[in-house]
Amino acid sequence: MTLSPSALAMVPFVSVDDMMKLVNAIGPAQMIAEIADYIEADFLRWDQFDKTPRVAAHSEEGVIELMPTSDGETYGFKYVNGHPANMARGFQTVTAFGVLARVDNGYPILLSEMTVLTALRTAATSAVAAKHLAPKGATTMAMIGNGAQCEFQALAFQKVIGINTVRLYDIDPVATDKAARNLANTGLTVIKCKTAQEAVTGADIVTTCTADKQYATILTDNMIGAGQHINAIGGDCPGKTELHKDILLRSDIFVEFPPQTRIEGEIQQLDAGHPVTELWQVIAGKAKGRSSADQITLFDSVGFATEDFSALRYVHDQLHKHGYFTELDMLADPDDPRDLFGMVRRANT
Amino acid sequence: MTLSPSALAMVPFVSVDDMMKLVNAIGPAQMIAEIADYIEADFLRWDQFDKTPRVAAHSEEGVIELMPTSDGETYGFKYVNGHPANMARGFQTVTAFGVLARVDNGYPILLSEMTVLTALRTAATSAVAAKHLAPKGATTMAMIGNGAQCEFQALAFQKVIGINTVRLYDIDPVATDKAARNLANTGLTVIKCKTAQEAVTGADIVTTCTADKQYATILTDNMIGAGQHINAIGGDCPGKTELHKDILLRSDIFVEFPPQTRIEGEIQQLDAGHPVTELWQVIAGKAKGRSSADQITLFDSVGFATEDFSALRYVHDQLHKHGYFTELDMLADPDDPRDLFGMVRRANT
Repeated sequence: MTLSPSALAMVPFVSVDDMMKLVNAIGPAQMIAEIADYIEADFLRWDQFDKTPRVAAHSEEGVIELMPTSDGETYGFKYVNGHPANMARGFQTVTAFGVLARVDNGYPILLSEMTVLTALRTAATSAVAAKHLAPKGATTMAMIGNGAQCEFQALAFQKVIGINTVRLYDIDPVATDKAARNLANTGLTVIKCKTAQEAVTGADIVTTCTADKQYATILTDNMIGAGQHINAIGGDCPGKTELHKDILLRSDIFVEFPPQTRIEGEIQQLDAGHPVTELWQVIAGKAKGRSSADQITLFDSVGFATEDFSALRYVHDQLHKHGYFTELDMLADPDDPRDLFGMVRRANT
Repeated sequence: MTLSPSALAMVPFVSVDDMMKLVNAIGPAQMIAEIADYIEADFLRWDQFDKTPRVAAHSEEGVIELMPTSDGETYGFKYVNGHPANMARGFQTVTAFGVLARVDNGYPILLSEMTVLTALRTAATSAVAAKHLAPKGATTMAMIGNGAQCEFQALAFQKVIGINTVRLYDIDPVATDKAARNLANTGLTVIKCKTAQEAVTGADIVTTCTADKQYATILTDNMIGAGQHINAIGGDCPGKTELHKDILLRSDIFVEFPPQTRIEGEIQQLDAGHPVTELWQVIAGKAKGRSSADQITLFDSVGFATEDFSALRYVHDQLHKHGYFTELDMLADPDDPRDLFGMVRRANT
């Protein structure tokens, strides 16, 4: 027996509260590492995915995007907004939710908050890239931008890469204090820095995750030296970049999905033909990752639909292990599919 | 004072049960007529809408689509599947849900079931088109295809156009019996017919809403005469049509959004340059609708994102009048937007 349509007509919903309970039950670093495994597994079957570019609705204040994908068996999409001015108004810059559905009958099988989950999957994706790109034995990471993504990145790199020291810098020292406080008792050595230059000094890995919607230069050319890995996650829409172009020209650049990254990533500053390597090819052994100790590697990350798919797939697999969900009456399910009208009218009696 | 972020972080959710209560509280015909007013109002401000084509994920079994749009102030999208084989397996051919969000901060303000709502908005859209295209004084409608959409169409045309007689035909007489039963006591004269030919005889309006995913010929050329209005809603994806091409060549054709209709509508059978008129232009008085009693008019309807937007806007306006919704904890809302991690960890205590 398969599930009855009535059971399928109910959609499991993971609320923010459920997601926080799940993160705390598993542990944030552990959950990021487990999501990283799902992301890596899905990158390994890259060809199976329908790679539709995200659909963006831009406005003066920000952007609302739908990011769909499918592996032929399961379909997923994420709704996500990016509104840089939100923070000053007391809103999240990014909020998100996502859906998984069965391709064979089109029925949704999961609705989940993705504000928290996106933070986890972004950190997990950065860690997956760094496994292949960071210098061997890296111990120190500079973090430029200490906002909502910062601690997740730090824990991801501690758990997956083996970082033991983070050097924090933000234009707002309140953000740095917040991150330092949250990272106390994690086993990481946390160093608060007064300038970006100070933060990157001696760092094996440099993570940039700032949020201004403008062409910014968080890192200038002189700040980056031989052998460093740059994990650039803040530049993720047209007009929003963080790195000086000269850094890009000295780096070997790795991206998720070139057609999207050329529009949204740091490489929007470069010619459309500038060579980049797709991360999935590195993971699959089809292209080289880091090939020398002196090489500057850059992961120009903008976030891709398959990563959200992987994260949703992970959450779906946790539903019945942890039970943190409710059922939503979201799909009409008449006894006779042709009798939608009769179902509505009988509900009246 | 505006709403606090905490209040905005909760998203009103209209379940199937809520939607059925709303339909029954307002009355299905009345609600369709009210949605028709919203659709017509939004067609009148056509230029304000971002008209992104739907994003479709096709598979052997069917299609899953995202249909986004925005009027600059409010953003909306619908998730909808179309799986013709579902009915035989006890699932709905079409299930759907939709979201409205604020453009200025990207926060969702409504999540609603749309399986029932799509049936209402499709009927409402047909009625809006018929107001401008059906012959004056039309009293009789043939309905070819008596599935889930049938009764909603009949009530829409009774309420908005003044139809008093429906002539039903379906290849499966069980469907016709179901529709006839549901339409008893509505004031409509219901006539069950044994052939499509019989159904269309003497009809002022012919509505086709069959569901096969194939090039079908529900209506042949000889069945359509001078002065009739054809409301073709079943042909709505590539490879799925209902009318013989010769009918199209004799008709004046009206469509929602030409780039989409040329791919998905009846006119996929015609040259890409075949003249069509956009419905919004007729409503706005920029183009002629029906101009003579002998003219055959055809509304080649595939369903457009603005119609879902109008329907969601209508439902959103009913939330606090009727109270049929619950609040979903769908958006993370830390006191400090930069302290997402701290929010997650504090939930553990």
